[in-house]
This record gives sequence, C-alpha cells and structure tokens, in this order.
Amino acid sequence: MAPRSVQPVILIVEPFGGSTRLHNPNLPMVYWDDAAVTRGDGVFETLLIRDGKPVNIERHARRFLASATLLGLPEPDLNYWHRATDEAAMEWYRQQGQTPAEGFRGEAQCVWTYTRGRASTGNPTAWIRVNSLPAEMIQQREQGVAVMTTPRGWTINTELPGVYVAAEGKVPQSPAPWLTVGAKTLNYAAAMAALRYAKDRGFDDVVWLGADGESVLEGATSTVVMEKKGKRLRTPSSGGEILPGTTQAALFDYAHSQGWKCKEKPLTVTDLKSARSVWLLSSVRGAVPVTRIDDTCLEPHDLDELRQLFQAAMH
Amino acid sequence: MAPRSVQPVILIVEPFGGSTRLHNPNLPMVYWDDAAVTRGDGVFETLLIRDGKPVNIERHARRFLASATLLGLPEPDLNYWHRATDEAAMEWYRQQGQTPAEGFRGEAQCVWTYTRGRASTGNPTAWIRVNSLPAEMIQQREQGVAVMTTPRGWTINTELPGVYVAAEGKVPQSPAPWLTVGAKTLNYAAAMAALRYAKDRGFDDVVWLGADGESVLEGATSTVVMEKKGKRLRTPSSGGEILPGTTQAALFDYAHSQGWKCKEKPLTVTDLKSARSVWLLSSVRGAVPVTRIDDTCLEPHDLDELRQLFQAAMH
Repeated sequence: MAPRSVQPVILIVEPFGGSTRLHNPNLPMVYWDDAAVTRGDGVFETLLIRDGKPVNIERHARRFLASATLLGLPEPDLNYWHRATDEAAMEWYRQQGQTPAEGFRGEAQCVWTYTRGRASTGNPTAWIRVNSLPAEMIQQREQGVAVMTTPRGWTINTELPGVYVAAEGKVPQSPAPWLTVGAKTLNYAAAMAALRYAKDRGFDDVVWLGADGESVLEGATSTVVMEKKGKRLRTPSSGGEILPGTTQAALFDYAHSQGWKCKEKPLTVTDLKSARSVWLLSSVRGAVPVTRIDDTCLEPHDLDELRQLFQAAMH
Repeated sequence: MAPRSVQPVILIVEPFGGSTRLHNPNLPMVYWDDAAVTRGDGVFETLLIRDGKPVNIERHARRFLASATLLGLPEPDLNYWHRATDEAAMEWYRQQGQTPAEGFRGEAQCVWTYTRGRASTGNPTAWIRVNSLPAEMIQQREQGVAVMTTPRGWTINTELPGVYVAAEGKVPQSPAPWLTVGAKTLNYAAAMAALRYAKDRGFDDVVWLGADGESVLEGATSTVVMEKKGKRLRTPSSGGEILPGTTQAALFDYAHSQGWKCKEKPLTVTDLKSARSVWLLSSVRGAVPVTRIDDTCLEPHDLDELRQLFQAAMH
C-alpha cells in the first residue's frame, strides 16, 4: 500500500444533499452501469485548495451549476458542495499530520465529479477528491512550459440557437440538443490524446488553434493569457470554441482593480510570439509561463510582477 | 437485490491477455483514478450475441483495434477478447438456466470496454459485460422509431493530415493529435444529451445533419440506411463526420452478394423522405424502420423483404 500521505481523500457526497462518506481509495468505487464509465456522461470542476481554503470557489461553483444544467442533471446544492469540500480538505490536511489549531498550510488539488449515475437506480453519483499536487505541476510553475500549437480539428457552429450563450458559460433560454458545448464534461479523450502527442515530441502542453491555423483558442486544459507592455492583459474571446476560464476571470477582475487594462479579443500565434509574456492559466497548476511556442523560444522577461499579481488575485 | 436473471454478467479481462474474473455487478468495480471515470479516456464496442454466438465479431474487433491504436492504448489481443466474449456469453446463458447440451437460444447485448486504466498503476482496465436486451429495443425493432433531425453543431476538419483516413476507420501513417476522430471513445455525453432532448419532445431517436441543415450524417448511436426501388441501398458516405458502421457494412456486403446495388453517397433529408424505406442500423437493436422524420410520417411500405435480408446478413 502507498504511504498514507500520498493517498487522496475521497468523499462520496449525496447528489441531493445529505450525508457524506469517506471512501477508501484502495477499493473500487464506481459501478459497471454508471454513466460516467459507459458514456462519459457527467461534469467536473478542479479547484486549488490553498492553506485550508478552496480558491476561487464561487466561479467554480457557478460553472459547475451551468455544466449540470446544460446536461440536464438535477441542480446541485452548492452550499452542500461547499461544506463537503471543506470537510474533504480538512481530512486531507489531517492525514498530512496537520491540525486546525495550528492552521492548515500547503496546497492540494480538489476535484468535484457529478455524473448521471447508475442506469439501474437513476440516481446521480457524486464525489469530491483531494490529493497532493503532482510534482510536474510545481516544476512547471517555476520553469514554464514549451507548447505545441495545432489546429483543434473541429469547429463549433456558434450560429445555432443557444450555442453561443452556452459556450459563454451561461444557460440559454431554449437549450439546443448538442448543448454539451460550454459544459465541462468528462469527455476529455481528445485533449488527453493531444497532450500525449505533444509530450512524445518534447513539448509540455498544447495550444489549440482555429481552423485558419493561426487564431489562438485555448490550452488543452488551460486558458491562454498574454501580457503586453503598459500593464495590459489579453485573452482570446471566450464563447464558441473556448471554455470560459475561471482562473483567467479571477485574474482579470483583480488586475483590473489594480489598474491593468484587461481585454478579451481575438489573438494569433504571431501576437503571442511578440508578447511581453505568455501564460497558461488553470486552477491548480496556476499561472505557468510559456517559454517556447513550437520552434520559437520566447524572449525571457521579468515574470515576477505577473506572478505576484496572480498570487494576489487567487483567493 | 434484482432477480438473478436480469443481472448482467461482468467479466474482468486482463488487457495483455491472461486470466479472467467474474465480477459481482452489485459491487463497485472501477477505481477513482481510472481514466474512464476522470477523462472518458477509453474505447468500447457493443455487439449482439445471438443463440450463443457473437454476431459480426470480425468487424467489431477490427474497429476496436483501430480505436485502441488511435488512442495509443496497448494493442489488444483479439483472440483473447474473442475467447473471453464466448466465456461471458456462456455464463449469461447459464444464468438464464440454459445448458450447452441443449444449445443456447436467445439474444443478449455484449459490451467491450477498454480504458487507459488507473493513473496510479499505468495499466489499462478492461472488461466485458453481457446483459439482456432492453425491452425498448425489441419494441422499436417491431414498431419502428420517430426521429428528430438536427444539425450536430460541430464540424470536423477532414483536410488536416491523417483525419480523413482515421475517420474512415483506418489508422493513418502519421496520426494527428486530435485523432480521437474515428475512434469509438467513451465520449458520448453529447449524443446522450441529444437523445434526452429528442425523447422529451416525443421522438425516439436523433439523426444528425451537417452544417447545411440538410445533408444526413448518422443517428446518435446508429447508421442511416435508405432503401430505394429496384433493390438499391444507400448510406451517407463515411469518413469525416460519420463513424463507419459495422452493421451497415455487414448488411451491404451480404446484400451485394444477393444482387442489391449498395452505395455510399451524400444523402439529404429530402432523399430520406422520398425513400421506399429508411432504417437506423446498430449492432444490438439491429435494423429499425423509421416511421417519422420530424413532422413527416413516412409512407408505410412492406418492410419484410429488408428485415429478412438483414436477418440473413447478421451472422
């Protein structure tokens, strides 16, 4: 058995609120007929826990609710999920040998999963897991990442009714049948395939491009942000091809309050290559600087100002 | 506990060949860190078992192998999967009270699942399940289905290298990173959302259309085939937007040998509405006649000739 400290905490939660139950991660958990396993039919959120507290939880909760609504899952009780997250986090710190009296220290990854559940019961399945940050993530925060750009290979028709609204992270009045667009579903097989492909070729991550092979969409599991001279931040316009980023939204809100000019607008690979700095933003890995785009090494600039801005924004 | 006879048989198989193990379906089976659960990162095939034998297994095995290769999963040993399928099927008939001496009778559904497995072990996970046919399927074979047409909402760029070949069910020489196109992955959340939407509106199934809102792609989990006068069968050209159908391929091969003219060519909704008959083909539900397309009831024709052709083709 793995040492106690690297084991995740798994907290089974009841989709309609109610009791919670710690699950031994060494035992199987999901049944053969759970829609998560048979169809990838479920939604998730990944949060950072820092010093005992979930970071940016309101935005995650909002997207979680939108994802569940878009998939026609029963509305999750967000207060209950919030309390259960605290419970799971506290258990994780306890397993690290920390006590509430001393105050919790350090970071953890937290994943909320909510599936359509077992075909045989019709009840959704839900759980929260808390685990240590992968060592690779911590290294990438420090050293940055080399990214491969590639066309995504598919295009969403945002002119269909409801699609654009959903892709912005909102729930449209008249939802269209294809409305897993905009929902953060478990269907990440393509993103995982792209990451494997990139890693085989010496890259750390992938940035998706539009069909023109030049316009920037998003990272495989992150949002692209670039910094320009004069305290300006840019990210590709969300909606349609791009899942709205909770971390980018938190950064832009805070940066704006600190006098930065923050804009969503179409960006190209050429824009990125001439930026002061380029970042991939995601909840747990945080803000990682891009050091290379395909064959082009980015000129090193002072990254500390943006690192500090990001740290301050994440609460 | 559900009565014995309606329980599925679950046979855990070893991805690299080796022993098999019957799993009690009343107990959980999949671990928290299995890529099937966290990312929908796996492939599957659904087969019909008829009178003790898997139907059309060579084509399913070929697509299974292509799916696994496209996702970079270790090559499955198809002889081993074949033997394990026989073992699971025999156990299912045994649980129905049948014995090999009398000969097995009746149909069952069989699903092969093969996932990237647990993050903590790096070993793929694989299992075979055999269960009774859902009553709804049997009813739909007899009574046909009403289908809703709708644009799929996304378009695959088949001009990117490798994509067209993969979409035809083959493994391209230089695979592109987005090559879950053409693989039958567990990422069916969108298809399930579309089916729920259609059922809420009084339809039984969905037929996806291209971006023009008129060209026919495929059913949510089936292939569209139409019959024209003069013993002619048509299906939309596969590749790109359409997963190649194993059942349609088996039907066309057999029909061709019986003097039918069978063609893959672009089809429109107007073509379907003026066809002699329209069918949705899939492995387990088989050939179901379409009785209504959106608001248009199709004129009833004699369906027996095609039903018999289909029955004869499926072995």
